[in-house]
Amino acid sequence: MTYCVAVRVDQGLVMLSDTRTNAGMDNIARFRKSFTYSVPGERAITLMCSGNLSITQGVKAMLGRAIKDSAIDPEVETILNCPTMHRAAQIVGDAMCAMQGRYRSTIEMQGAAADASILIAGQRKGGKPRLYLIYSAGNFIEATEDTPFFQIGEHKYGKPILDRIIKRGTSLEDATKAVLVSMDSTLRSNLSVGMPLDLTVIERDAFDFRVRTRIEADNEEFQLLSHSWSAALRKGFEDLPNVLD
Amino acid sequence: MTYCVAVRVDQGLVMLSDTRTNAGMDNIARFRKSFTYSVPGERAITLMCSGNLSITQGVKAMLGRAIKDSAIDPEVETILNCPTMHRAAQIVGDAMCAMQGRYRSTIEMQGAAADASILIAGQRKGGKPRLYLIYSAGNFIEATEDTPFFQIGEHKYGKPILDRIIKRGTSLEDATKAVLVSMDSTLRSNLSVGMPLDLTVIERDAFDFRVRTRIEADNEEFQLLSHSWSAALRKGFEDLPNVLD
Repeated sequence: MTYCVAVRVDQGLVMLSDTRTNAGMDNIARFRKSFTYSVPGERAITLMCSGNLSITQGVKAMLGRAIKDSAIDPEVETILNCPTMHRAAQIVGDAMCAMQGRYRSTIEMQGAAADASILIAGQRKGGKPRLYLIYSAGNFIEATEDTPFFQIGEHKYGKPILDRIIKRGTSLEDATKAVLVSMDSTLRSNLSVGMPLDLTVIERDAFDFRVRTRIEADNEEFQLLSHSWSAALRKGFEDLPNVLD
Repeated sequence: MTYCVAVRVDQGLVMLSDTRTNAGMDNIARFRKSFTYSVPGERAITLMCSGNLSITQGVKAMLGRAIKDSAIDPEVETILNCPTMHRAAQIVGDAMCAMQGRYRSTIEMQGAAADASILIAGQRKGGKPRLYLIYSAGNFIEATEDTPFFQIGEHKYGKPILDRIIKRGTSLEDATKAVLVSMDSTLRSNLSVGMPLDLTVIERDAFDFRVRTRIEADNEEFQLLSHSWSAALRKGFEDLPNVLD
């Protein structure tokens, strides 16, 4: 399983993913699910992947190959030189379509699931911060003011806190805390989501990463946040009005 | 969809269910999912149902018919005269089996899902408070000290708070608050779970219901709890240590 969450607020973008994958309960591994691409000062993009790992790795390979090719032939279109974030989402969607077309029927013949989804979040100079969710069919939706966050993978455990906190006006600081708390709840309730975590934060109009870091299981800041949240929930719960009698 | 949660702590049993059912997004209705049975002073039992409504209503009809028949012929075994709660769970499981046997294949031929699950919680004189989860196949598991609560239906949104709060030593008061908070989170995140709610509380060795009530949408106590919890979460969130810089 996987849990990835991306938030678009007025101040910018926050992306967080876990690193656990499993093919059955007895085949657990660790794979990075967040990937960053940037032309510092011009654009910064984070991709996060869930679903069939061979499909998403294939998509990532296609995107990377195009970027390499464009160094030799600048005519090759890539997510780093395309005119808009919307076009970048299309390029990722096209790569998804190509991978699904190549492998989906044979994967399904084996009784496995080929579904995958990808979040792409970023900003290019001249545009606004954008966040898209790309489906297996290559189609995609964009986060709006009404729905300023997307989750892929095991999304339910960590959704209530996002529903309560995330609005378009939420600060980047609070959005970062909220995704970390959301991940903390998910880690507690689902064994197939696991540390370490990959966090990226893109501040509006910086066209670079403010944060691009791996949070290991022994990270003191994350542990402090997790313990503080536990204590706050416990205290809040204790202070609730009585309901019996 | 449905959300039912039942808790077994040292002090007794707490059961809470919503009332919304849906056959597709455009066919929403309200059905009671909690049903109580008692011989005051001897036993008190709550059943909660999720899944295919025709199946669970059929199970309930079989249990009710047996109770009626036993008034004429005391030899007829029912959940109200059987020797143990374990046997009561078996009786419910047998009724589930009978209903699945009668309709499952034709339901599935129509492309619908016949799965259902039932929680049965109660205590009879001479026994301990017991909580069982009965599956579609009629088999069942019992809640233990390690896992003192069961959820059926839309369980994920409301699980984190239960994971944090519910232990065998949790008071009946706190267990009641916890299931209400768990339901509140679920109501916020899933439209197919809806008010009103049915709450029952069985105190250990009372062999009767301490609480057996319907909580309507305008219930002031529940609204106060919901608002207090929102405020506590917001306050707890605001007080979290900073993570950026």
